[in-house]
Amino acid sequence: MSREEFQALLDYSVEEARTVLLQGKVADYIPELKKAPAEQLGIVLTDLEGHIYASGDTDRPFTIQSIVKVFALLYALEHFGPDLVFEKVGMEPSGASFMEMTTLSDFSNKPSNPLINAGAIVVASMISQEIEFDHFLEYISGLCASNGLKVNEAVFLSELDHSERNHALAWELKRLRLLTNNLDESLWFYTRGCAVEMTARELSRFAVILANGGYDPLTGEQKVDAEVVRITLTLLFTCGLYNGTGEFAVRIGLPAKSGVGGGILAAAHQRFGIGAYGPSLDIYGNSIGAIKVLSELSEKLDWHTFAWNE
Amino acid sequence: MSREEFQALLDYSVEEARTVLLQGKVADYIPELKKAPAEQLGIVLTDLEGHIYASGDTDRPFTIQSIVKVFALLYALEHFGPDLVFEKVGMEPSGASFMEMTTLSDFSNKPSNPLINAGAIVVASMISQEIEFDHFLEYISGLCASNGLKVNEAVFLSELDHSERNHALAWELKRLRLLTNNLDESLWFYTRGCAVEMTARELSRFAVILANGGYDPLTGEQKVDAEVVRITLTLLFTCGLYNGTGEFAVRIGLPAKSGVGGGILAAAHQRFGIGAYGPSLDIYGNSIGAIKVLSELSEKLDWHTFAWNE
Amino acid sequence: MSREEFQALLDYSVEEARTVLLQGKVADYIPELKKAPAEQLGIVLTDLEGHIYASGDTDRPFTIQSIVKVFALLYALEHFGPDLVFEKVGMEPSGASFMEMTTLSDFSNKPSNPLINAGAIVVASMISQEIEFDHFLEYISGLCASNGLKVNEAVFLSELDHSERNHALAWELKRLRLLTNNLDESLWFYTRGCAVEMTARELSRFAVILANGGYDPLTGEQKVDAEVVRITLTLLFTCGLYNGTGEFAVRIGLPAKSGVGGGILAAAHQRFGIGAYGPSLDIYGNSIGAIKVLSELSEKLDWHTFAWNE
Amino acid sequence: MSREEFQALLDYSVEEARTVLLQGKVADYIPELKKAPAEQLGIVLTDLEGHIYASGDTDRPFTIQSIVKVFALLYALEHFGPDLVFEKVGMEPSGASFMEMTTLSDFSNKPSNPLINAGAIVVASMISQEIEFDHFLEYISGLCASNGLKVNEAVFLSELDHSERNHALAWELKRLRLLTNNLDESLWFYTRGCAVEMTARELSRFAVILANGGYDPLTGEQKVDAEVVRITLTLLFTCGLYNGTGEFAVRIGLPAKSGVGGGILAAAHQRFGIGAYGPSLDIYGNSIGAIKVLSELSEKLDWHTFAWNE
Repeated sequence: MSREEFQALLDYSVEEARTVLLQGKVADYIPELKKAPAEQLGIVLTDLEGHIYASGDTDRPFTIQSIVKVFALLYALEHFGPDLVFEKVGMEPSGASFMEMTTLSDFSNKPSNPLINAGAIVVASMISQEIEFDHFLEYISGLCASNGLKVNEAVFLSELDHSERNHALAWELKRLRLLTNNLDESLWFYTRGCAVEMTARELSRFAVILANGGYDPLTGEQKVDAEVVRITLTLLFTCGLYNGTGEFAVRIGLPAKSGVGGGILAAAHQRFGIGAYGPSLDIYGNSIGAIKVLSELSEKLDWHTFAWNE
Repeated sequence: MSREEFQALLDYSVEEARTVLLQGKVADYIPELKKAPAEQLGIVLTDLEGHIYASGDTDRPFTIQSIVKVFALLYALEHFGPDLVFEKVGMEPSGASFMEMTTLSDFSNKPSNPLINAGAIVVASMISQEIEFDHFLEYISGLCASNGLKVNEAVFLSELDHSERNHALAWELKRLRLLTNNLDESLWFYTRGCAVEMTARELSRFAVILANGGYDPLTGEQKVDAEVVRITLTLLFTCGLYNGTGEFAVRIGLPAKSGVGGGILAAAHQRFGIGAYGPSLDIYGNSIGAIKVLSELSEKLDWHTFAWNE
Repeated sequence: MSREEFQALLDYSVEEARTVLLQGKVADYIPELKKAPAEQLGIVLTDLEGHIYASGDTDRPFTIQSIVKVFALLYALEHFGPDLVFEKVGMEPSGASFMEMTTLSDFSNKPSNPLINAGAIVVASMISQEIEFDHFLEYISGLCASNGLKVNEAVFLSELDHSERNHALAWELKRLRLLTNNLDESLWFYTRGCAVEMTARELSRFAVILANGGYDPLTGEQKVDAEVVRITLTLLFTCGLYNGTGEFAVRIGLPAKSGVGGGILAAAHQRFGIGAYGPSLDIYGNSIGAIKVLSELSEKLDWHTFAWNE
Repeated sequence: MSREEFQALLDYSVEEARTVLLQGKVADYIPELKKAPAEQLGIVLTDLEGHIYASGDTDRPFTIQSIVKVFALLYALEHFGPDLVFEKVGMEPSGASFMEMTTLSDFSNKPSNPLINAGAIVVASMISQEIEFDHFLEYISGLCASNGLKVNEAVFLSELDHSERNHALAWELKRLRLLTNNLDESLWFYTRGCAVEMTARELSRFAVILANGGYDPLTGEQKVDAEVVRITLTLLFTCGLYNGTGEFAVRIGLPAKSGVGGGILAAAHQRFGIGAYGPSLDIYGNSIGAIKVLSELSEKLDWHTFAWNE
């Protein structure tokens, strides 16, 4: 397939997917999130040679929400090592429901994995004790090849104001001696991370690093350790999309992470880094339009992790 | 690596792994299973060209136990289609504990996936209404390239005699109208499947079909539909090893399914079909020796699904 | 208050309570139960001198359903002793929801108490190993001063046909070695007990024995041991009305047991034995009309267990 | 029985009960509580004529811990009315385990009852918005006929320092909009109440008011509304002793509330108000010695709520 044909396929898939947007619903548990434009949808693919394919609303910034868990996990794995991280959080899928978006009661000794809220708060606590938030933001910007990502302050404040469940989780984590930094700073750090804004284009620049064993094809740098990437992709595959994870894995078959801001990060291993955005969400809390586009492309391009490729 | 070097690596890994066997424990919830020789360990690898590499106790028959769920799933997907199957069982990891080896209370409308007992009983019910058990046994034999696998009648009777939890599950499934055949026949069929005996060699012959998109490299037949294989590998990756699934996925990174009889089936996608056997089990109910060998080999041979390969 | 005034109060309360019948709903989980006439309501009080006060539909037979648990508990406590009974079932309120009307997952070692289905099946198993059902029916008839109660065979068969959840519970109980008789006989016995028919008048004759320390004021016999009565009243007070138990205890304050057939048994300690009937049920599965009458009478006559009486 | 015989029985029961103290264990989840003298045991009974019978360590102050929930419930019922209180907490036994001494996950819309931590925090929040803690302390002192109860500041600070679970509960309550005052003040107020100190003698003075329909026989005042007392006694009977509640109700049969400081408050309805103290606890967290004395006395004096008395 030529690059033009590929772009045409992408455009066609995005247009097709717009038809399902009305079946979804913008997140409404945080007042500020309700304002997102349900009709938007965009996707950007970056291949291992650094070619970029974009279609739709790809330059509209959105808050990354749960996708920050991926940046935090990478940072923690790189700076503290897998052993220390997995002493405090597990590696198991949790079977948790989206309704709660977190799982208050499903951990006894430690959170099941770093991609549920409880686990991510533990990771945020580790990082926040080590560095200022602004340095973490620079780390994220670096991975996205951005000049300087920003926090959406209105969303941040609105979320901080609606973070009772996360506070409850954090107190349980404190009781279990799983927070390394103090509780308020840990939560502040985590919540602020959720409110970082980027575009699908920037998300795709990050995703290609995951698809490429940590190596950035556009700058020629090894940006993340290959083993760290491998661990992260595995956890994305088994735990990345709330309780739509299993269905996404079976049908689409990519490591991915969604956020209720409408973003989805996906990595077609050794092929493409993908950043998608569409704030209309399905019942699992995943972008309904982005899921539809990914489904189309995965099928047409044999992206499924366990597809049989010549 | 030459074939001789490869064989030497295999032999070395098996010998090394024997040292951990004493840290595990043979399954004891069924009297007949307690008799298994804890000191045994064997592994067989079949590559996509049909070369077979064997080391250790590879010709000792064992009962496949939970591994029958893979055969049942394949049969059901092929004969009833994914839509019908996933109407009755989910695709989501369950976060279920090994202690119960099943999950009595974690399904409301349908079992989370076809690899927990409740899900497998649903699948067995579908199959048992369609065909005699002996035909299903022939189907399994065909996939293992065996002349005729047999049921270990002593184990079968012992398990039937200790199947209270499965009966409780089956009655709940009946209440939810998820059994297509009558309850006793469904359970009989499922339990009998668990008691099918095979060797690591036979299991490996089956596994290579999964690793090879359904195509048997030794006979030149497409034995299973490629889409069915893809779905199955995904479910093995996300749900195959009880609540050791996530850790296995992160560290070893292969679709796999274990049974409390000590067998493990694994598929190194597009590389090897693997059958392993060692009845000494770890705390998750997985063969402690086989896990150790797989861990060694995966690391040395870069088998991890999300490893970056040149 | 004269006996005539008392009768007038009773008649008034029943008429008043008829107005709420439309707010309830006849049980519909068993086809045969759906046929019950929602507009009926009746209550009979027997005092410690043997005077009987009746109002409304007091001679219409209904199936006692869960109320059989009280007869079974009495029989078991008398014939096996509290120690043996409480080795197999607990004494704790379960917090179980009516939605399930049983609690599949809320017991680990033994059912919380003998008034949830799981506990009652354990008790039925003990009794059924000892005596024929017809002897148990004679025991019940004796306590109700009836010439011979009968089983409603249509309801019995309909319930046996819809007893999947009870089967699941029974298999769990078997797994925990809590059934003394075989499973099918235990369930048959329990289910048959639920389908015993009596009138509010007969139920009241039984209730007065409970209100009177085991002594039947009309025959002058000590029909049940006083300690057994005491234990039973306590369990009725703490566990008798599904998850409407606490509210009933706070507001009305009597030991009581309801059945989804619309019957309620209550004992105003040392004052009255009460049998009530009205098949229209509230959200907890308790007769909405009978609860209303009991509420009225308890308030007017200071029946509450913890009321302060001169 | 003469008053001398009664006193002798009391003394005998206390001495007898000392033999079980070694089988219990002083609470250790809060450092300050560990210091309690396990060998102490005392009980005080006050009858409706104001006679006081004391035996053992009756003048040793202890922190009332969970018993404060009774004072808070009374205050709230009197000042806000049952309707407002039960809008925010339920009336149902929770089946909660002592291990947690609270129930983090067993409420969806509101806590099951005001005697579990979650429910008591809701009640404390209501009160704390209305009055200063010192006024609440005066209210408690008034009910205990004390010149001025004090908070044990060391215990208070130690508990505040170990209140992670209560913080988690409080954040969940805040999420459910069940706190009327701000979270920190609500928790501060509740925790400070737990650290109020009194003696068994003072507790008994309070208990007799509950046993006597709210009327203080020694001062001749109606100190609490009779309906409020009735509601409170009911909740004590069905929910007062963690998950030893059912067993206590069946065997001893009194409305009662225990605290992990070793105190037990009990009311023999229309007979005695009882204050007991013994810091060695049984597996449910209740004073093992006090339970033993109460058991003896209840049996000998026919105190059981459902005993049959001439």
